[in-house]
Amino acid sequence: MSAEPLGPVLVVGAGLLGTSIGLALRRTGVDVALSDISEENLRIASGLGAANLTAAQLTAARLVVVAVPPDHLATEVVRALREHPGVVTDVGSVKAEPLAAVHAQVDTAELSRYVGSHPMAGSERSGPFAASAALFDGRPWAVAAHPDADPAAVQTVAALARACGATPVMLTPQEHDAAVARTSHLPHLLAALVAGRLADAPAEHLTLSGQGVRDVTRVAAGDPALWRQIVAANATALSELLREVRADVDTLLAALAAGDRDAVTTLLDRGVAGTAVIPGKHGGPTRPETSVYVAVPDHPGELARLLADAGEIGVNIEDLRIDHDPGRPVGLVELLVAADAVDHLLSSLADRGWTAHR
Amino acid sequence: MSAEPLGPVLVVGAGLLGTSIGLALRRTGVDVALSDISEENLRIASGLGAANLTAAQLTAARLVVVAVPPDHLATEVVRALREHPGVVTDVGSVKAEPLAAVHAQVDTAELSRYVGSHPMAGSERSGPFAASAALFDGRPWAVAAHPDADPAAVQTVAALARACGATPVMLTPQEHDAAVARTSHLPHLLAALVAGRLADAPAEHLTLSGQGVRDVTRVAAGDPALWRQIVAANATALSELLREVRADVDTLLAALAAGDRDAVTTLLDRGVAGTAVIPGKHGGPTRPETSVYVAVPDHPGELARLLADAGEIGVNIEDLRIDHDPGRPVGLVELLVAADAVDHLLSSLADRGWTAHR
Repeated sequence: MSAEPLGPVLVVGAGLLGTSIGLALRRTGVDVALSDISEENLRIASGLGAANLTAAQLTAARLVVVAVPPDHLATEVVRALREHPGVVTDVGSVKAEPLAAVHAQVDTAELSRYVGSHPMAGSERSGPFAASAALFDGRPWAVAAHPDADPAAVQTVAALARACGATPVMLTPQEHDAAVARTSHLPHLLAALVAGRLADAPAEHLTLSGQGVRDVTRVAAGDPALWRQIVAANATALSELLREVRADVDTLLAALAAGDRDAVTTLLDRGVAGTAVIPGKHGGPTRPETSVYVAVPDHPGELARLLADAGEIGVNIEDLRIDHDPGRPVGLVELLVAADAVDHLLSSLADRGWTAHR
Repeated sequence: MSAEPLGPVLVVGAGLLGTSIGLALRRTGVDVALSDISEENLRIASGLGAANLTAAQLTAARLVVVAVPPDHLATEVVRALREHPGVVTDVGSVKAEPLAAVHAQVDTAELSRYVGSHPMAGSERSGPFAASAALFDGRPWAVAAHPDADPAAVQTVAALARACGATPVMLTPQEHDAAVARTSHLPHLLAALVAGRLADAPAEHLTLSGQGVRDVTRVAAGDPALWRQIVAANATALSELLREVRADVDTLLAALAAGDRDAVTTLLDRGVAGTAVIPGKHGGPTRPETSVYVAVPDHPGELARLLADAGEIGVNIEDLRIDHDPGRPVGLVELLVAADAVDHLLSSLADRGWTAHR
């Protein structure tokens, strides 16, 4: 961790991420200036307290954070390297393509001060009004050092992540892009294809929608104007995965036509294996969790009463899902708890009058 | 609704669904007998209270519910039609193929007494120990009447659904299969393909996994031995959708290679439209909901305290998600609330000392 002070920091772009970074840094007392081509965004972000300096006051930033849409990233990074003596980072969703574009326009000394990064946080909303100092709390924040980066600059960007409440994760730009293609961009695209099949389904067919299809398609509600840029910028890594998916779809179609169940099972088994390798809570290894379902009347306070009871019973709720059910005012709440706590939880909930089952 | 009494009911198959149906019917006082090729399943289910008669005592069931794996469905339905004078239903995930198989083996009078059905409920666990009288509470239960079905038999199966706490949804077998291919089987297969891409990813890449990929892949953890049967039995409807997906994947690959962003946007827009048509809670139209994120210390009681505060504030929580975060013991809880309640909730939570943002 750098012993140097982090600020003064210039944040370029007063949207959701830029404003949230300003708010998070101001929370720890770092001096921040904001700039944006939109006067309105700038006024809102400043009003929220995301900056204590104007960009005109800050002519020699120690750190510039470029938080603009993917299409404008490289241009703004190069401008920042030219105008400021300090470290420059960006918070875009893709890292290799902007690095190559910056590389083509700057000399080695300038390039050594640029280290791209990517906080794994966001919102379906955008703009400074959606910003929050807490947006990055507890999130991973990828720091994508390239071979020509100054190690001190890398430490400065890691310190930025920590100052914003996030956990730095060190990856090369290529590793980062391959990683997010797998863990974010491909899931997004396939969720959109599944959701696309629902768009022209008869309404009565959709009454059979359960929690599964809701979960699979949730991310597909994200902003297409942003996602088209992300997808285009990570085209290489994403295309490789899409070709694998197409081969799998071909395998499935051939297997269904031939009644070859073993081929279907092989793909399903691989899916099970994939769900098992996603890291557990707090980055630790996954541990066995079991679902407990509880019927809860659907009005304010009932869910709180349930969780207060679970708290008194002494069982920690690892995750919780509220099922949407048709035609009746009772919600079904799924509690995920450690497998060895299930029996105790079930019997204790029953004692307190709850209808619960595994 | 039938004015006739529902029982005595014979449930064939003492697994998760059969045992849960027995428990749900016994809860309302209906006489139930159970049968299973496994003596152990039968003993467990009976011990749980899922039956009050033996199968030997029940020679003339008013209703037979066949709850066996997909591969054995048609055989057991035909046997039930031959051995009992009453209505016969099944609870399998696919309806057209078993109907055709039954049709080929019985006469018109026997066929008129068969009405397939499908409760939209289950668990990642299986077997009688996972059963619960509450499994179907508030769930849709598809009743798939064919043209030769006796209307009284259809009413009997709808009455079964209601007796088990579910809401009957009337669809033809073909409509049912097309509906679940879209809302359940295709999402499952594509979730498995996304998860399959994670199976051989380097572990450090997976540290960037966020809530999105967890949601998209959750269902892929389901039992391949069951899903291979479901997929095979609904091969026709599923293959049609898989061909549409393959065409979309080809469109994406061509668009990424050509830098054609408009083609990507068209598919993303369709995905957004698809997420908007999934019915809202309680089967009603979707209403605008907004996410509020709250930082919550990760130990028993804190979540309860948050929800107790939300209850006192008077805001109903429509849905709730606990984010898994690496490296720190603070959870991020996402509350979904009606859009017009957000400002009031945020300011009231802040008053009570919570760190919350949109």
